[in-house]
Amino acid sequence: MAETSNRSNRFLRALRRESVDTTPVWIMRQAGRYLPEYRATRARAGSFLALAQTPELACEVTLQPIERFELDAAILFSDILTVPHAMGLGLHFVEGEGPKFAAPVRSAAAIAKLGVPDPEGPLRYVMDAVRLVRHELGGRVPLIGFAGSPWTLACYMIEGEGSRDFARVKAFALNEPAAMHTLLDVNARAIAAYLAAQAAAGAQALMVFDSWGGMLAPALFAEFSQRYLAQITALLRADARARAVPLIVFSKGANASLEILADTGCAALGVDWTLTLDEARRRVGARVALQGNLDPATLLASPEVIRREVARVLDDFGAHPGHVFNLGHGITPDVDPANLTVLIDAVHAHTAHGERG
Amino acid sequence: MAETSNRSNRFLRALRRESVDTTPVWIMRQAGRYLPEYRATRARAGSFLALAQTPELACEVTLQPIERFELDAAILFSDILTVPHAMGLGLHFVEGEGPKFAAPVRSAAAIAKLGVPDPEGPLRYVMDAVRLVRHELGGRVPLIGFAGSPWTLACYMIEGEGSRDFARVKAFALNEPAAMHTLLDVNARAIAAYLAAQAAAGAQALMVFDSWGGMLAPALFAEFSQRYLAQITALLRADARARAVPLIVFSKGANASLEILADTGCAALGVDWTLTLDEARRRVGARVALQGNLDPATLLASPEVIRREVARVLDDFGAHPGHVFNLGHGITPDVDPANLTVLIDAVHAHTAHGERG
Repeated sequence: MAETSNRSNRFLRALRRESVDTTPVWIMRQAGRYLPEYRATRARAGSFLALAQTPELACEVTLQPIERFELDAAILFSDILTVPHAMGLGLHFVEGEGPKFAAPVRSAAAIAKLGVPDPEGPLRYVMDAVRLVRHELGGRVPLIGFAGSPWTLACYMIEGEGSRDFARVKAFALNEPAAMHTLLDVNARAIAAYLAAQAAAGAQALMVFDSWGGMLAPALFAEFSQRYLAQITALLRADARARAVPLIVFSKGANASLEILADTGCAALGVDWTLTLDEARRRVGARVALQGNLDPATLLASPEVIRREVARVLDDFGAHPGHVFNLGHGITPDVDPANLTVLIDAVHAHTAHGERG
Repeated sequence: MAETSNRSNRFLRALRRESVDTTPVWIMRQAGRYLPEYRATRARAGSFLALAQTPELACEVTLQPIERFELDAAILFSDILTVPHAMGLGLHFVEGEGPKFAAPVRSAAAIAKLGVPDPEGPLRYVMDAVRLVRHELGGRVPLIGFAGSPWTLACYMIEGEGSRDFARVKAFALNEPAAMHTLLDVNARAIAAYLAAQAAAGAQALMVFDSWGGMLAPALFAEFSQRYLAQITALLRADARARAVPLIVFSKGANASLEILADTGCAALGVDWTLTLDEARRRVGARVALQGNLDPATLLASPEVIRREVARVLDDFGAHPGHVFNLGHGITPDVDPANLTVLIDAVHAHTAHGERG
């Protein structure tokens, strides 16, 4: 007889494409600015970076949405740019402008100097946060660790800050492919080491956010993003600490490349809302679980509309194993937390007719 | 024997999926800030709006790229927001912030008051510009007229300005679908009248820019965008002035919906660079011509790389009739005009081995 599914394990069971009592749900940026308790802790921390770098505070905000909502997974509160910061690029945040690096890398010479940071050295604050959160969760729900993708980190490392289109980064990739490949390789090795260390510290699932992969034409996506996502998967499989920990890959907007993303060997793919889950599932088959994909803007609508749109996403996926409900992008600061309760209840109620899958 | 194809007609022949001597090419925003002569005329006009609203100046900048480059079509210099401006919303531009409306529409009552503006009334300056450009072109290349899509205009009309995600507009569509459909219907009728009048004034092809359709989930795209693109196509077919004028529809990012876009009955679909043209062609068949789809960032790379990436796009489409080369989005202000010469020459040289198609 199958193990019983409940809040403590339905997320991991869904990632393994096993039957679950109801579809699990968590929300990208669930520990975030839409929550008044988050804003209070953030104010106490003094800065975003202090919040992310103080394990006790990072733990506190990680747990806030778990206490308030019937979410089925926790995700570590951190930032994708911790890794390049540990490589020496000097991360800082300018209020209202987002992240910036003091020392962006824009030449083959600067790239050649980069190394893989020790996860228990300059990144120890992240591992300490993972250990603390895992302890404080006490088995209620699984903990997700995460990192940015090699391409997405490279975008910020070269540009030095955010950009609407990262056009200069794409031009660098086209004009100096050898230097770009060197950068992506060191990023992939650094990210794999970082994720394996998070698994060793207690993360029960891992996720890679390829936030800017979808800006690349398909041939360049294969060359500059997917290839290094596959390298990370291979490195994690070869690492005894991470081998059994499921990996979720989310390349937002890279919908033309779903098949080769499934080929990376990850356990699950994140899907944004511009593709239906039945179409995504038709294309990748049952090789991977799927995570997504409600438009975050839906949470600005009425409870009645939220319930209808949640049902639409669930029905798009259908009564198969291997669905983790999520938004197709992070929750936005202007959402009323009460609407997230409506969403979570709708997911659980709509799929609670016996074991799903 | 087939009519001979040359600069004056290869664009229109490709839209009809007829054979051409070389693949035609034009560039979205070819009359734009990357050109020093454009910046000079723009400075003389005093403001963007004065430039767009003075037929002699709009004509001057429309012709500038035709004089400088071997482009195969001219596109009227104008703005998609001329139509809501003529509806009384009060368009103005704030330097560095983009377009704004003095009187956005945010209620069913405000929407109910909107009517279809007379294209030869408050929009006569656009028709005068079309007539002047057509005369000044003297048959060298065909002239494209254009408009924004019903959904894209609705985004600006409700939000009152640009937005990263138009989340409030999507919430309005979800919460008040009847009011949104009323708005989209009046927009579709206004746009069809505007495009038909441009055809009557001399435009030889028409294009609808659905810049924000791709932000909608597929079911909502069908309901709030594609349906009204089909309404425009039907209205133009029923209008003797526009019936024979090919219509290009470009819903940037709506790549999950290419099939239903082809079903609108348009002559051609614009395609952004995140989908290969062979994949797009496989999905829509030979029902429509395709226009695209080089990543605009490629123009920041070296001439050698530009030539290689142009060849990749041409080879993706293959030796079929019905390809108009373009970028997958507008050319950016930081491009060196010399690189556009490289692109245009590469398109013509790569496809000049006899009649293509």
